[in-house]
Amino acid sequence: MRVDLNSDLGEGFGSWRMGDDAAMLAVVTSANVACGFHAGDPGIMVATARAARARGVALGAHPGFRDLEGFGRRMIPQSPTEVEQAVAYQIGALQSCAALAGHRVSYVKAHGALANLANVADDVAAAIARAVRAVDPGLVLMVMPGLPAERAALDLGLAVAREVYADRAYAEDGRLSPRAEPGAVIHDAQAAAARTVRMLEEGAVETLAGRRIPVAIDTVCVHGDTPAAVAMARAVRAGLEAAGHTLAPFAA
Amino acid sequence: MRVDLNSDLGEGFGSWRMGDDAAMLAVVTSANVACGFHAGDPGIMVATARAARARGVALGAHPGFRDLEGFGRRMIPQSPTEVEQAVAYQIGALQSCAALAGHRVSYVKAHGALANLANVADDVAAAIARAVRAVDPGLVLMVMPGLPAERAALDLGLAVAREVYADRAYAEDGRLSPRAEPGAVIHDAQAAAARTVRMLEEGAVETLAGRRIPVAIDTVCVHGDTPAAVAMARAVRAGLEAAGHTLAPFAA
Amino acid sequence: MRVDLNSDLGEGFGSWRMGDDAAMLAVVTSANVACGFHAGDPGIMVATARAARARGVALGAHPGFRDLEGFGRRMIPQSPTEVEQAVAYQIGALQSCAALAGHRVSYVKAHGALANLANVADDVAAAIARAVRAVDPGLVLMVMPGLPAERAALDLGLAVAREVYADRAYAEDGRLSPRAEPGAVIHDAQAAAARTVRMLEEGAVETLAGRRIPVAIDTVCVHGDTPAAVAMARAVRAGLEAAGHTLAPFAA
Amino acid sequence: MRVDLNSDLGEGFGSWRMGDDAAMLAVVTSANVACGFHAGDPGIMVATARAARARGVALGAHPGFRDLEGFGRRMIPQSPTEVEQAVAYQIGALQSCAALAGHRVSYVKAHGALANLANVADDVAAAIARAVRAVDPGLVLMVMPGLPAERAALDLGLAVAREVYADRAYAEDGRLSPRAEPGAVIHDAQAAAARTVRMLEEGAVETLAGRRIPVAIDTVCVHGDTPAAVAMARAVRAGLEAAGHTLAPFAA
Repeated sequence: MRVDLNSDLGEGFGSWRMGDDAAMLAVVTSANVACGFHAGDPGIMVATARAARARGVALGAHPGFRDLEGFGRRMIPQSPTEVEQAVAYQIGALQSCAALAGHRVSYVKAHGALANLANVADDVAAAIARAVRAVDPGLVLMVMPGLPAERAALDLGLAVAREVYADRAYAEDGRLSPRAEPGAVIHDAQAAAARTVRMLEEGAVETLAGRRIPVAIDTVCVHGDTPAAVAMARAVRAGLEAAGHTLAPFAA
Repeated sequence: MRVDLNSDLGEGFGSWRMGDDAAMLAVVTSANVACGFHAGDPGIMVATARAARARGVALGAHPGFRDLEGFGRRMIPQSPTEVEQAVAYQIGALQSCAALAGHRVSYVKAHGALANLANVADDVAAAIARAVRAVDPGLVLMVMPGLPAERAALDLGLAVAREVYADRAYAEDGRLSPRAEPGAVIHDAQAAAARTVRMLEEGAVETLAGRRIPVAIDTVCVHGDTPAAVAMARAVRAGLEAAGHTLAPFAA
Repeated sequence: MRVDLNSDLGEGFGSWRMGDDAAMLAVVTSANVACGFHAGDPGIMVATARAARARGVALGAHPGFRDLEGFGRRMIPQSPTEVEQAVAYQIGALQSCAALAGHRVSYVKAHGALANLANVADDVAAAIARAVRAVDPGLVLMVMPGLPAERAALDLGLAVAREVYADRAYAEDGRLSPRAEPGAVIHDAQAAAARTVRMLEEGAVETLAGRRIPVAIDTVCVHGDTPAAVAMARAVRAGLEAAGHTLAPFAA
Repeated sequence: MRVDLNSDLGEGFGSWRMGDDAAMLAVVTSANVACGFHAGDPGIMVATARAARARGVALGAHPGFRDLEGFGRRMIPQSPTEVEQAVAYQIGALQSCAALAGHRVSYVKAHGALANLANVADDVAAAIARAVRAVDPGLVLMVMPGLPAERAALDLGLAVAREVYADRAYAEDGRLSPRAEPGAVIHDAQAAAARTVRMLEEGAVETLAGRRIPVAIDTVCVHGDTPAAVAMARAVRAGLEAAGHTLAPFAA
């Protein structure tokens, strides 16, 4: 009955900010922190780690493609070896920033286009898992269950945290439906909350066609980049608590 | 009679290269590796760490201002706190790249304008030392002896490696003479080698006016960014060996 | 009785935004558009030029130091020649983006730390003026009256637009009071509006000590990076119109 | 009997250099100058324009994807509109740098992955042509003959310069053979020179299978990023002159 709530945080750069991190840190139990390649800089990383520590929120490295202009959402052509090196670099950078903040990185979650790639490409999924293991085999890898990223992590003996999305519909293959498809994104906060509670009760994600795919669920992903997203995150948390779930980090 | 020879390496970015790293790794015993802010990228960092490991060369993080365009040689206005965060970020990034290469970072040396600043500004020197201690108090800080960077390191209980420059003249205050001054840069390889041997014998640096300033010397800095620089580095090493010194990393 | 109202716009980058450009384009008559060095990218530049054209707002290039992380507010050490080249580059880039939008660049205003430097350093002021003249001698240079930037422009035969700040107090030398000083920033929208009307009536800026420095005034600078700033910009415009001024671009 | 010889120049960034620009400017008649997105910065751009002017070498803008790390060789996902804006930005930037150098941009040639994309994707080819026309319809677009980029230019009424590669084999569809294929790259300078003379005589490119594809040829592309490349460029020029061709820019 214990579940984690995670969100992407620290997604500013220099003078720019993205989303309301302070509000989200009062809602989530795990913070996926951008590491400077698609967003984030040392100052933002340390500040986010410090704020997470003050709230008892677990810290995850959120490595992405080096692509500030595209916010890590563009598929930058890289070899698996290049991905491995870039992911290791970013984890280490956040570990040191966390040290300055008196916190520690306990998990890793790939961002944006890199995460999408790791959900379809075995070699990239393996590269990410190798990077995590080389930096610290005690780090947990946060993954979508049933896809290459999870298998790659388990193959290397890494612990995994399996996540579902509160506001996204699933395709028949267990991946997220593309945002452009009708019904792919749930905009109603109460609907998202009810759906999340149901996924946890059933131990399954629900596809657009209404099919259930059984999965283990350790954490629920919510967004915080708009006021509406923050409101939805709060609704999801309230719904989970009302259903008797205890919100807590999967990793400390 | 044991001394270290260090040089800046891994100073390329993407498709660009600076200097002949392979040649220098056969000469030096410690490699100061750029960490992505003024030069270096994950691929170059891992490759340099791997090559250093194969040669038994110690690995140092070489953090600088985030300034690819200026190669870290421009004084970018930053608060001590910003310097602390940027230095921590860079050390952590190299530590992870070193892990991928089966090597480890054993020391830190500030680069370019950041190093110059740490030689005159107590608060920046302290910020760098705090970053090093937060990331790993076992890391050695490479410093110019007698200046703020050394005092800051010792104040925080960090081990230091004191360095002299083979090819640079010293001002009366123990700092390097500005390059523009006549006699500030030694271009003759044999002269640089003889001078380096003399500094080690006397335990002192020699100022432009001919005065000796007694200093402890753990390591000698040589450059490798031009063919002439590589030749000078070789001459310095040969001179040191001929004088009976054993070349070895100060830290493993 | 005709005066221009200018503001910095297009200050986002990639997925990040700064301020409410749409709101400001309904208030101002001239838009200073970031050119990609401290903010801005080709997509934002074209979109801002297009929106300005639709509103009849004049377009100015707003070149700054290449410093996304510092938003152009840090003094990056550059020679006058480097400034000249960087300013020319940025003006040309915006000219082409304006061409795509069916608009044209009619003036240039330096941004942030570069503007501050041009207000104290004759050689940098001259470098900016040379860049403008080389690219197009018909471009107007927007300057603070009585300072090196104005003299440099006039020396090269460039037309100038002299600006005052609606919400900033002046020091005794005619420069802006540093923001840290008490009273340096006017936060009350009505006070700023009244003060702006008074400056235009008197043909003078008002120093913190209450002295008047006579200046020619072609344009008034307002900010738009916060909701309060947008409200103040509207108040300043309303105040000017109530006092019988016609708001119109100084250049078309 | 008049032909142009073009090469990519100005491909450094900050302190880094790529190839021997001075040597190449004595060989070629047209210089494709990087515009700051995949290589190049304002200082390098002005210096290259100035050196080209001194040699009577025509100046071309060489826009690429914004990808310093990948040197413009990676396919960055961008919409045609984004390509159009990025290409316009880069042309304008070089035009202004050329103005500072007393030179002018007379043509445009897409770089690396962007050029490859324009050779297969009609919408991207059209976007580049639109950018060129918006900035200056008098600019010539340098293209590989028979491919989408040429058609897009002609459709918009732009003048084209059709180029062949001295050291690259052609596939059966008139595109370059991928470098990985056997025989795709000609390494022998004399062979490349002889082949170039033959292409001009026959008015055709030669495919790997030995077939001739008739094409108009206005310019020959040579490389200069290695000493061997410079030697080959000289051999190609010598071969062309020996065969009675006059080397001259296709555009002034």
